[in-house]
Amino acid sequence: MHAYRSHTCADLTKADVGQTVRLSGWVHRIRDHGGVLFIDLRDHYGITQVLCDPDSPVFNAVENVRSEWCIRIDGEVKARDESLVNPKLPTGEIEVFIRDMEVLGAAEELPLIVFGDQEYPEETRLRYRYLDLRREAMQRNMTLRSDVVASIRKRMWNSGFREYQTPIITASSPEGARDFLVPSRLHPGKFYALPQAPQQFKQLIMVSGFDKYFQIAPCFRDEDPRADRSPTDFYQLDMEMSFVSQQDVFDTIQPVMQGVFEEFGGGRKVDTDWPQISYRDAALWYGTDKPDLRNPIKMQDCTEHFRGSGFAIFAKLLEQEGTEIRAIPAPGGGSRKFCDRMNAFAQKEGLPGMGYIFWRDQGDGMEAAGPLAKNIGPERTEAIRQQLGLEVGDAAFFLGGKPSSFETVAGKARVVIGDELGLTDKDRFAFAWIVDFPMYEADEETGAVDFSHNPFSMPQGGMDALQGNPLDVLGYQYDLACNGYELVSGAIRNHKPEIMFKAFELAGYGEDEVRKRFGGMVNAFRFGAPPHGGCAAGIDRMVMLLADTANIREVIMFPMNQRAEDLMMNAPSDPTSDQLMELGLRVIPKED
Amino acid sequence: MHAYRSHTCADLTKADVGQTVRLSGWVHRIRDHGGVLFIDLRDHYGITQVLCDPDSPVFNAVENVRSEWCIRIDGEVKARDESLVNPKLPTGEIEVFIRDMEVLGAAEELPLIVFGDQEYPEETRLRYRYLDLRREAMQRNMTLRSDVVASIRKRMWNSGFREYQTPIITASSPEGARDFLVPSRLHPGKFYALPQAPQQFKQLIMVSGFDKYFQIAPCFRDEDPRADRSPTDFYQLDMEMSFVSQQDVFDTIQPVMQGVFEEFGGGRKVDTDWPQISYRDAALWYGTDKPDLRNPIKMQDCTEHFRGSGFAIFAKLLEQEGTEIRAIPAPGGGSRKFCDRMNAFAQKEGLPGMGYIFWRDQGDGMEAAGPLAKNIGPERTEAIRQQLGLEVGDAAFFLGGKPSSFETVAGKARVVIGDELGLTDKDRFAFAWIVDFPMYEADEETGAVDFSHNPFSMPQGGMDALQGNPLDVLGYQYDLACNGYELVSGAIRNHKPEIMFKAFELAGYGEDEVRKRFGGMVNAFRFGAPPHGGCAAGIDRMVMLLADTANIREVIMFPMNQRAEDLMMNAPSDPTSDQLMELGLRVIPKED
Repeated sequence: MHAYRSHTCADLTKADVGQTVRLSGWVHRIRDHGGVLFIDLRDHYGITQVLCDPDSPVFNAVENVRSEWCIRIDGEVKARDESLVNPKLPTGEIEVFIRDMEVLGAAEELPLIVFGDQEYPEETRLRYRYLDLRREAMQRNMTLRSDVVASIRKRMWNSGFREYQTPIITASSPEGARDFLVPSRLHPGKFYALPQAPQQFKQLIMVSGFDKYFQIAPCFRDEDPRADRSPTDFYQLDMEMSFVSQQDVFDTIQPVMQGVFEEFGGGRKVDTDWPQISYRDAALWYGTDKPDLRNPIKMQDCTEHFRGSGFAIFAKLLEQEGTEIRAIPAPGGGSRKFCDRMNAFAQKEGLPGMGYIFWRDQGDGMEAAGPLAKNIGPERTEAIRQQLGLEVGDAAFFLGGKPSSFETVAGKARVVIGDELGLTDKDRFAFAWIVDFPMYEADEETGAVDFSHNPFSMPQGGMDALQGNPLDVLGYQYDLACNGYELVSGAIRNHKPEIMFKAFELAGYGEDEVRKRFGGMVNAFRFGAPPHGGCAAGIDRMVMLLADTANIREVIMFPMNQRAEDLMMNAPSDPTSDQLMELGLRVIPKED
Repeated sequence: MHAYRSHTCADLTKADVGQTVRLSGWVHRIRDHGGVLFIDLRDHYGITQVLCDPDSPVFNAVENVRSEWCIRIDGEVKARDESLVNPKLPTGEIEVFIRDMEVLGAAEELPLIVFGDQEYPEETRLRYRYLDLRREAMQRNMTLRSDVVASIRKRMWNSGFREYQTPIITASSPEGARDFLVPSRLHPGKFYALPQAPQQFKQLIMVSGFDKYFQIAPCFRDEDPRADRSPTDFYQLDMEMSFVSQQDVFDTIQPVMQGVFEEFGGGRKVDTDWPQISYRDAALWYGTDKPDLRNPIKMQDCTEHFRGSGFAIFAKLLEQEGTEIRAIPAPGGGSRKFCDRMNAFAQKEGLPGMGYIFWRDQGDGMEAAGPLAKNIGPERTEAIRQQLGLEVGDAAFFLGGKPSSFETVAGKARVVIGDELGLTDKDRFAFAWIVDFPMYEADEETGAVDFSHNPFSMPQGGMDALQGNPLDVLGYQYDLACNGYELVSGAIRNHKPEIMFKAFELAGYGEDEVRKRFGGMVNAFRFGAPPHGGCAAGIDRMVMLLADTANIREVIMFPMNQRAEDLMMNAPSDPTSDQLMELGLRVIPKED
């Protein structure tokens, strides 16, 4: 017989009754029922009930075992009494009578109980991660993550992509965040950087003629920690294709993503229609470029209804250039209580408040209620109602000013309204491509023009488009939003050196600066670069959505804590003076 | 029609004759045949001959294109004249008459020609890697690598393994080599390390109850560069299993490796019998722990034939303790010329020489020739011949002394003899498990005992074995040798804290030291650790063997040069003073 097991703890059924078997696993629970010891023996695959009666030659030894001891048992499979069958357990029809037992690994007193759902502080969970990971939810999350990544790979292979590995110890790749640096020993005083993303390398792979690249790529950004962000490394499905337009990238990646969500969504509805929404429309309709389309609320421009109206605040506001009034329709929100709560929400978010109108039935017909309705009068109120398609029992909220001053709060209010009114379908994944991102933005104070997103994207209209107002230039750049998160980001790249230099010039970067910062790529484009584009999808984010958790540390095997420390492995730690010497570095003493 | 292509450059056949098609790719070659321009248009998938006659509306534009320009053409598919069909090309039956052309990416004068096999200095190839990678051999090597890794993943999944990602920015993992360090910004003066291998993490994954782990894992060692070693990052198939013995690991990994070699070996024979050879036998038989079993030569101990013999050098040598005489049989090497050449080889390697005997037919029967045969006399000579199983036309070489002084040279001589005599079957992959590695070795000068290989391995015999002479202790540790390379290395791990502390004690490490250096793992073992073991296989090495190259840079997309520099991306480079300030570091000025 095998040294440790003839079966896993999920294998045995009624068909095995009478067999002598060997199992290994952890003591999940142990109970003493009238002198008979019942152990739920657990391994990665399942749980089997094993029991030891006083007749067993190892009864005394079994009496000593405690929770989470790792043991090996030999025993005889017996059918459970009909009344004791556990239909929830694949092994629920049988139990194993222990005849021999070996302690493979004893356990000290546990700082964290594996059985059950007891909550522990995150620091405890991370310090004893190997115990935390034994818990059912974490086993499930980790296998989910592994299965999602495997499924992505299979889908990409089946779409004709090959995975190519790009360097991890490399040069700074200016993606906007901060690099992690790696001091060089062979070249003291010089540093490598860990890639924020394989952006330049994947573009070089296209210039090298490989046509279709993907990689489940580790990415490194030295950013300040957040609940939904790993403070060190995270993974992306990174892909790039040659000879493609934006629509080709969409047509390639949608089946992959949709397939993964269908496979692992646990029955939640996965939308198959992925609308393309311009960045501008997304801002107007949803107040964000990562809208949650499970929420049906779409904001609208109501400016004209308030221009010169009796609601002085808005009327006055609209005399300033660039101001608008936008409405958030709230079907079913037609009560003063709800409207006041939403108004208070806006105030908490730092706005003076949200004006509102709600429609109620006064017995003799519909009445528009709220101070705002009174101020603008029945005609304008009715025109608003008709524009928004609202009825008795509904409400609408209004925000005014320069859109940049209220758009974010409006977006949040839309989410809260959708949630509170039960309009948002939680058991669903809703996707939207956000397209037509502006290439440039002007600094509000200085007016200086800079790239608003990825400087490597191809401007729509090419060189011609760069001759006019930079702020009017749109890029072939896109995001995929899912349930309020940005899941994918990508672009058709600017593969023409002359257009690239011009694009950078508009943002104030000279040719020398561009050559210095992106030399590898710019040089390559001088030797027959193909048109190409692609995208990157956040793996951790996908798994978070599928596992229905908002904490990234629930879907990473060994995450850092929020101070970017690994308490289990003791990282970061002090270097030895030999190490510093070899690297030619000195640590600047802290000022106290 | 699609903006860039209706077909790839490998698609068109006779069935497409008459179609108007669109192709995109690179100008591989362009020739002018009596006023008609012939272009071999190349993409990732293949080559299509396209041509432009003076009637074409774009003739003048096509006249301007040069090698490696990236272009898009529209044209009509025509059948080639029977006599011009190229059976070597999938598209060899047709050609495309260009009607329209667009330059997608022009190319300046090329520093490296893509067409043909011209050799370039490695620095040129790496600086213009995107051109080098367009060459046929590099396209083949990179797709081979990608396909090998994909195949490994599929085979591991099919064997019940899941891939789990372990941290890349983490703590020092003392694997014997030098760590790359990453300074922490949030904790100035402290450093993370990049993992030399996920050794501790994969063991923690077993303690966490995951049963079967693998990862195509990036590993980082700050080692001095070598032809067959990447100076920064390299990849391993890293795997670990719980509740297994050494044989279980072999039975799991052999089908994976063998399958990959069969799939990608290009018809070369793949041995299915993988002998298990003890470390001791490997040293005796092959002079190395990574023997090339394609070479049938097996060395033998011939000590007793020389003890007290007339060959004074050996007889004298054998009076010292620990000395041996070993023979390298050389079937077919029975000529003085060959024997002298081998003797010269040994002298070049720093030995005084190799004694030899060769057997020739003197008309009236076999004669043993060479000075050694004369000195020891016919009886001993014949006994040696019989032991080694040699005949007329064969030879044997002899080395004497302490094995450690000549084993390496003996191993090299065996390789050279096998090669020169044509005994080594080059079209074959031959594998052997090397087992029973000693746990400890004594420093030749100080006599101090230290671990000879992996300190985390379980000693054979467990705690009992650690009570005697450490130098007698063998570990459950193993390597897989293939064609003279170490392809896999692994062990059954020491999962019992008390045995681990004892094992370290024998090597002079106190409990505190062990806790300090391997705290994460040692702590985990206190809470019910399962028996476990695994191995790691070098991906780069596997691909090198399959691609039949001895230079690791031929199988890595963007490798560093031998000074650990990336000339294309300019790494490593000077940090900015802001970066150093944030990290709390100062560069020590170089002493001139």
